[in-house]
Amino acid sequence: MRRTKFDEWPCPIARTADLIGDWWTPLVLRDLFFGLRKFDQIQDELGIPRAVLAQRLDRLVTEGMVEKRQYEERPPRYEYRLTAKGRDFFGVLAAMWRWGEDWLFDESGAPMVLKDRETGRVIRPLVVDQETGEPIDVRTLRMGRAPSR
Amino acid sequence: MRRTKFDEWPCPIARTADLIGDWWTPLVLRDLFFGLRKFDQIQDELGIPRAVLAQRLDRLVTEGMVEKRQYEERPPRYEYRLTAKGRDFFGVLAAMWRWGEDWLFDESGAPMVLKDRETGRVIRPLVVDQETGEPIDVRTLRMGRAPSR
Repeated sequence: MRRTKFDEWPCPIARTADLIGDWWTPLVLRDLFFGLRKFDQIQDELGIPRAVLAQRLDRLVTEGMVEKRQYEERPPRYEYRLTAKGRDFFGVLAAMWRWGEDWLFDESGAPMVLKDRETGRVIRPLVVDQETGEPIDVRTLRMGRAPSR
Repeated sequence: MRRTKFDEWPCPIARTADLIGDWWTPLVLRDLFFGLRKFDQIQDELGIPRAVLAQRLDRLVTEGMVEKRQYEERPPRYEYRLTAKGRDFFGVLAAMWRWGEDWLFDESGAPMVLKDRETGRVIRPLVVDQETGEPIDVRTLRMGRAPSR
């Protein structure tokens, strides 16, 4: 069954959901963020079927989030790297991390944390209003028409 | 084909992806956030097949993100409301909104924005380090084992 596509909807959440809804995709991105670059590495790490990984990487390349680069001629070998658009997606993964950490584990908590690479300090992502630095509170928000520019 | 489930994986992103990967789910949550409570309202607004909406709402109830409440006895009528766990998910939607807004529209930008309900000020969500208030930068992070507690 062909699923409904959201990628032309006017809502930014809908468009992003269209992409994230390709299950595996957030996990492929996570692996790229944490330094994996080769098809076989990602395939090993996730235990993802090869055909599915190929399709997800192709979509990320088509979306302009990932660049496929040949790094060896004979035999031809490729690596995958995040573009600026792909790197910027980390905010979404960080928000997913935080909510998952807070709500999807039992009292002993998640076995993994985000840490500062140098100091080892545990980092907790938080979504704020960029202007005030206050946590986002949906009760104070509404969706509205963009100001004309 | 039964898809791979991520809901028992140790990574908070994987567990959250399991939920978000039910396409439609982020959009159902968005509608609940912006005040819709009745099955028919959500069904109308999204144009989602009834069986799919019923399945997504059931899952959200099972996950403890949404509460189903009877508000009329004859005929029996129900409404859906976010729980604390569901409300807290808004951070993920806000991060999706921001990234979608920044990357998935042409130069004229997204037609919709988030606004402060009272002042009308445009709100731009940003994911920061909770302790420092600095934007999250994946290059300074690593995943590590949680400190024992």
